[in-house]
Amino acid sequence: MEIFALHSEYLSSNQGRHERGVMNVRAVVKNGPGPGFDLVDLEAKPLGSRDVLVEIEAAAICGTDLHIYDWNAWAAGAGLPESFIVGHEFSGRVVAVGDAVRMVKPGDKVSAESHVACGQCYQCLNGLQHICGNLKVIGVHTDGCWAEYAVVPECCARPIPEEIDFHTAAIMEPLGTSIRCAQLAEVSGNTVVVTGCGPIGLGAIAAAQAFGAANIVATDIVPSRMELGQQMGATHVLHGVQDDVGVLVRELTQGVGADAVIECSGNIPALQAAFKYLRKGGRVVLVGLPSQPLTLDVGPDLAFKEATVRGVHGRRMYETWQTMESLLVKGLIDPKPIITHVLPMAEYEDGIHLCKSGEGCKVLLLPK
Amino acid sequence: MEIFALHSEYLSSNQGRHERGVMNVRAVVKNGPGPGFDLVDLEAKPLGSRDVLVEIEAAAICGTDLHIYDWNAWAAGAGLPESFIVGHEFSGRVVAVGDAVRMVKPGDKVSAESHVACGQCYQCLNGLQHICGNLKVIGVHTDGCWAEYAVVPECCARPIPEEIDFHTAAIMEPLGTSIRCAQLAEVSGNTVVVTGCGPIGLGAIAAAQAFGAANIVATDIVPSRMELGQQMGATHVLHGVQDDVGVLVRELTQGVGADAVIECSGNIPALQAAFKYLRKGGRVVLVGLPSQPLTLDVGPDLAFKEATVRGVHGRRMYETWQTMESLLVKGLIDPKPIITHVLPMAEYEDGIHLCKSGEGCKVLLLPK
Amino acid sequence: MEIFALHSEYLSSNQGRHERGVMNVRAVVKNGPGPGFDLVDLEAKPLGSRDVLVEIEAAAICGTDLHIYDWNAWAAGAGLPESFIVGHEFSGRVVAVGDAVRMVKPGDKVSAESHVACGQCYQCLNGLQHICGNLKVIGVHTDGCWAEYAVVPECCARPIPEEIDFHTAAIMEPLGTSIRCAQLAEVSGNTVVVTGCGPIGLGAIAAAQAFGAANIVATDIVPSRMELGQQMGATHVLHGVQDDVGVLVRELTQGVGADAVIECSGNIPALQAAFKYLRKGGRVVLVGLPSQPLTLDVGPDLAFKEATVRGVHGRRMYETWQTMESLLVKGLIDPKPIITHVLPMAEYEDGIHLCKSGEGCKVLLLPK
Amino acid sequence: MEIFALHSEYLSSNQGRHERGVMNVRAVVKNGPGPGFDLVDLEAKPLGSRDVLVEIEAAAICGTDLHIYDWNAWAAGAGLPESFIVGHEFSGRVVAVGDAVRMVKPGDKVSAESHVACGQCYQCLNGLQHICGNLKVIGVHTDGCWAEYAVVPECCARPIPEEIDFHTAAIMEPLGTSIRCAQLAEVSGNTVVVTGCGPIGLGAIAAAQAFGAANIVATDIVPSRMELGQQMGATHVLHGVQDDVGVLVRELTQGVGADAVIECSGNIPALQAAFKYLRKGGRVVLVGLPSQPLTLDVGPDLAFKEATVRGVHGRRMYETWQTMESLLVKGLIDPKPIITHVLPMAEYEDGIHLCKSGEGCKVLLLPK
Repeated sequence: MEIFALHSEYLSSNQGRHERGVMNVRAVVKNGPGPGFDLVDLEAKPLGSRDVLVEIEAAAICGTDLHIYDWNAWAAGAGLPESFIVGHEFSGRVVAVGDAVRMVKPGDKVSAESHVACGQCYQCLNGLQHICGNLKVIGVHTDGCWAEYAVVPECCARPIPEEIDFHTAAIMEPLGTSIRCAQLAEVSGNTVVVTGCGPIGLGAIAAAQAFGAANIVATDIVPSRMELGQQMGATHVLHGVQDDVGVLVRELTQGVGADAVIECSGNIPALQAAFKYLRKGGRVVLVGLPSQPLTLDVGPDLAFKEATVRGVHGRRMYETWQTMESLLVKGLIDPKPIITHVLPMAEYEDGIHLCKSGEGCKVLLLPK
Repeated sequence: MEIFALHSEYLSSNQGRHERGVMNVRAVVKNGPGPGFDLVDLEAKPLGSRDVLVEIEAAAICGTDLHIYDWNAWAAGAGLPESFIVGHEFSGRVVAVGDAVRMVKPGDKVSAESHVACGQCYQCLNGLQHICGNLKVIGVHTDGCWAEYAVVPECCARPIPEEIDFHTAAIMEPLGTSIRCAQLAEVSGNTVVVTGCGPIGLGAIAAAQAFGAANIVATDIVPSRMELGQQMGATHVLHGVQDDVGVLVRELTQGVGADAVIECSGNIPALQAAFKYLRKGGRVVLVGLPSQPLTLDVGPDLAFKEATVRGVHGRRMYETWQTMESLLVKGLIDPKPIITHVLPMAEYEDGIHLCKSGEGCKVLLLPK
Repeated sequence: MEIFALHSEYLSSNQGRHERGVMNVRAVVKNGPGPGFDLVDLEAKPLGSRDVLVEIEAAAICGTDLHIYDWNAWAAGAGLPESFIVGHEFSGRVVAVGDAVRMVKPGDKVSAESHVACGQCYQCLNGLQHICGNLKVIGVHTDGCWAEYAVVPECCARPIPEEIDFHTAAIMEPLGTSIRCAQLAEVSGNTVVVTGCGPIGLGAIAAAQAFGAANIVATDIVPSRMELGQQMGATHVLHGVQDDVGVLVRELTQGVGADAVIECSGNIPALQAAFKYLRKGGRVVLVGLPSQPLTLDVGPDLAFKEATVRGVHGRRMYETWQTMESLLVKGLIDPKPIITHVLPMAEYEDGIHLCKSGEGCKVLLLPK
Repeated sequence: MEIFALHSEYLSSNQGRHERGVMNVRAVVKNGPGPGFDLVDLEAKPLGSRDVLVEIEAAAICGTDLHIYDWNAWAAGAGLPESFIVGHEFSGRVVAVGDAVRMVKPGDKVSAESHVACGQCYQCLNGLQHICGNLKVIGVHTDGCWAEYAVVPECCARPIPEEIDFHTAAIMEPLGTSIRCAQLAEVSGNTVVVTGCGPIGLGAIAAAQAFGAANIVATDIVPSRMELGQQMGATHVLHGVQDDVGVLVRELTQGVGADAVIECSGNIPALQAAFKYLRKGGRVVLVGLPSQPLTLDVGPDLAFKEATVRGVHGRRMYETWQTMESLLVKGLIDPKPIITHVLPMAEYEDGIHLCKSGEGCKVLLLPK
């Protein structure tokens, strides 16, 4: 197998530009259909002219990785490559760059923008490259980052300030999604409900607090996640099944309803309930991915209420990053509590298990 | 029965302020549960301090009126008053006004804003009175306008320029909804699909043309409605069931998809299809009211696509009116073709039949 | 003189509706052209049907009051009434309301929205009543609030939550302007400069902090004001004349420039400098009122930079109030340090002197 | 002199990629300080990896070219290169592209986006590349297009539909600026004033008409330009000095004032007047470049009126192009009347004279 091949000069080169040579890289790979990953040593491949070679400091486990690990219905039908390095959330330092690379240079501390934009489609030419018409995601459609070194397209290695530590930097990809959700929800001075206290929801809570939300109601069903919700800034935390969110929302808003809902749970009943306790003229931001279809009653849920529903797939490239970096450097958001476990990369199976059980929230893997 | 009682002085008073007296008014009323309307003569009731007495020149039939006529499931469950004058679209001239009325005066030509805003709720105090938290609609929750004279709250009698004729003025309520949909869809220079060529859809087509939409794809299943779609400005008209809208949209947009969809059909398969041919980053404006639930696949339909969905319940009070009046006076929109039939009010049964059969589009009733 | 005449029943009435009677009210009035105010006892006048009688708990001194006191060029040319009670910032409790009043009731704690909207003009009918085409301001064009009791139009008595104390409530009018400036400046995660640490500037600093601004650079030339700037949340405070704001801004932004400037000083050189250190695509919010004309170089200051300049005259009615009340109740903004002095109303001359000298920032007057 | 050097293979190459060789190109150049241009034959230079070689079909004369020709104060102080090919508006067909070029290919019909974005600065990384922090303009800071062939950066050669003819395509650069101004002015159903009927103003009139403006008041002082204003869609044309725009605007708007002004004249009194007849809450879009400073009265002109002022420097890359191409292909805008003269490139002196005298509006130069 030769899916990943690095020139050893990448690492030794003083000047940072690539030359010939061979080296081995340890990585976690998906090898053909069916459940499971493998930890292997790979040979180097040449660096493309728009590629960046990153020495990985920390990688993170995301729900998408679990789907690929399990090889669920989505993974089986997604047309994934036969064999690839998994993982799309990382932090690290640039070792070498291709000839045409301009946005980043060797020595830069970087975080992962997982979206690979083609640069030529309608969306890329119209300010929407984060939802590129030919969108690929590293670690899903191309080689990813659970590895000692990763080769990613220039647009996926975002240079970040040195003040941001590597652990925080490893989860800026999901945190950026959270921040964007909070921006679209227009939370300042408002009552917002965040359904689901996973990594995205917790980041959204932190962002809502940073932006001056008046009430932040968070829901989950796992006690440790509910505690994290409170720690990240929720003013109220409810059990997503046992408690009636609508009752609290109406109490907090004198019967008016929630100004905004950020749906991060992927839970259909939670989402349907949100359309009931949303106020007339309110906003629903959808980022959680339900495995079941959503059924709505167009009249009362949407039309009479003049609800605005907005789907979110990721961070704007790179407006969201700009904002996020400022918030992190100034300490206005601290996402550290979201990271519950840090493991050596070789123990990725344990990490996956922690995520699945709900015991872990964000789990980091360290390749060295 | 005394549901409507006018002081005769309303009509004779030179000065336009109300005094005592009695007169009879012919009106179409809903009298208790069950199908059907009645044409009756009613005695006058006193004019409230914020009410306006309007001599009706033309009233129009809307889908809501059909539901009430049929006494369908919605009507039976909507908590309607026991007995009331039906109809919420009208044009006329103000005869008298209550003591506290300031926005309109006797002699003014007026059209109907059907939404009654309470003026005190969250929405009314926050620039959203058109979706008032205690919203009532004339002809549904209170006496309406299929009558020689109507008494409506001040906020429902919008003074309009004399240049707008009474027939056009009678359908400004639905036309305003259409215009607002076109505004929210951001059609200028874009490709927009309007599903459903009823009165709302046809008005949206006209507004899209006025605002400089590049492609306006309209759909319906009734041939006469499809012809009206073309007449109002659609650049392409398709059969909503037999034709594949997505194929045409992708052809018109080099595979990108529609920038916006204005859903006016209430047809669930049409609406579901719209989420498929919508481009990434596109907008869906929902104004049609399906009788069935809508089922969506959150990931591909909303999140990955970053779709924006916006429900619409009516015109902004009164920004939409301001814009609509300018467009009508300048001839930039001509909604006349939407009016297919004009009948004496006494023949309202025929009008209802024309609407139900699809033979009529907008049908006017003339009380005199 | 009879400019103010209250029925004594206002105060005794259990039911809160007005009847006949006479009482005396102590008030500070402007009596004809020329400098100075008078403290007098006035007889009651009848309460209009849309008026509200408020027992004043605290009133505040604003720059406009100083202009009227001094009878400067603006005041002399503003067409003010011959004689009127001054003051437009207050807190208090409603004692009685006119027949047509619906938004407030006796017993309500209220703050002052100083803008009197006519309710009938283009702006009032199009969601802009705060800049009504026939705008009047209480205490300027009609009787104001430096008095034991004030009669104001319904739209000027905003009911507020009981949690907000009377001193804070007395300065919500200027604070709302500050909050609106911060909203228009879009400060979250951004670098914003607030020029001028008077009441409006200090409120804008507090709001910028509440909304998550990354850098808040404040300027003034009075040391005590500069200290207040820091206390309210500025991350950097500069001397407006001796320091070079541009140098700091460029340092904080890696040479890019400020995302936004909120101009509260009315100082022309400060404003001109702002257009230089503003980044390309940045925003300038203008609320300070210079006594001199502003001279700009359209090309570099505005066009090449694609600057957005936005004038602000006050709070939106009532969206800004809604947000402000939430922020205050939740403790996300604490404007108390802005209030430097609290005096009996009879000592209004001292209060005026404190404001003019710069020793006082916001000075409250207590009528009882 | 060797400022422009093309490999002859560019033209003969079947495959469209560049190789070695030499050819001569006729071009109009600026040769050192002082007035005047020269028509010369130049030798080819190598094509950079991100450059595009375009065979020019038509180039256009812009006001900037006149400033450089005259070597006025701006030109003398702008730090222009010692010697360069002038011109930044063109149409043509791509002959060859550099190795790293992806957005355009040999054979494509292209128009000129004159702005060269660096791709790495704050603005470029935040969706504002059209006002890049290191912005260069072809024909001003680098070689331009008054030539048989032009070498421009990839981002300056916008592929356009074949349906758009070469003459129209040569003026899409200024037309895009006009369209963007009309978008920012939010003209649909509104009253807009366009001051100045030069190429930008005329394009803005056409765009305002396409977007459904209710009243389009245009001003100029040259009779032929005023006629063009009417031809392009102005509903009213006034003499900019002899007529009082404010009187007409107030008459058209029942005293309210203009919703928006698009300032294309660079005339200070016209601009100052605009701030007077603008309605409260109105918008001023500034694109004209006055040679004198602008003096405003902040209180009445900006703050009390809550005016929004927006500077414009060019088209968004490439949202504006997308919209413009749709409008042109569908015939919703026809900018042909703006082109008053078409000359052989060798007669550029006559073209410059036509522009200066006001006799010509947009003058095209044909290199072959």
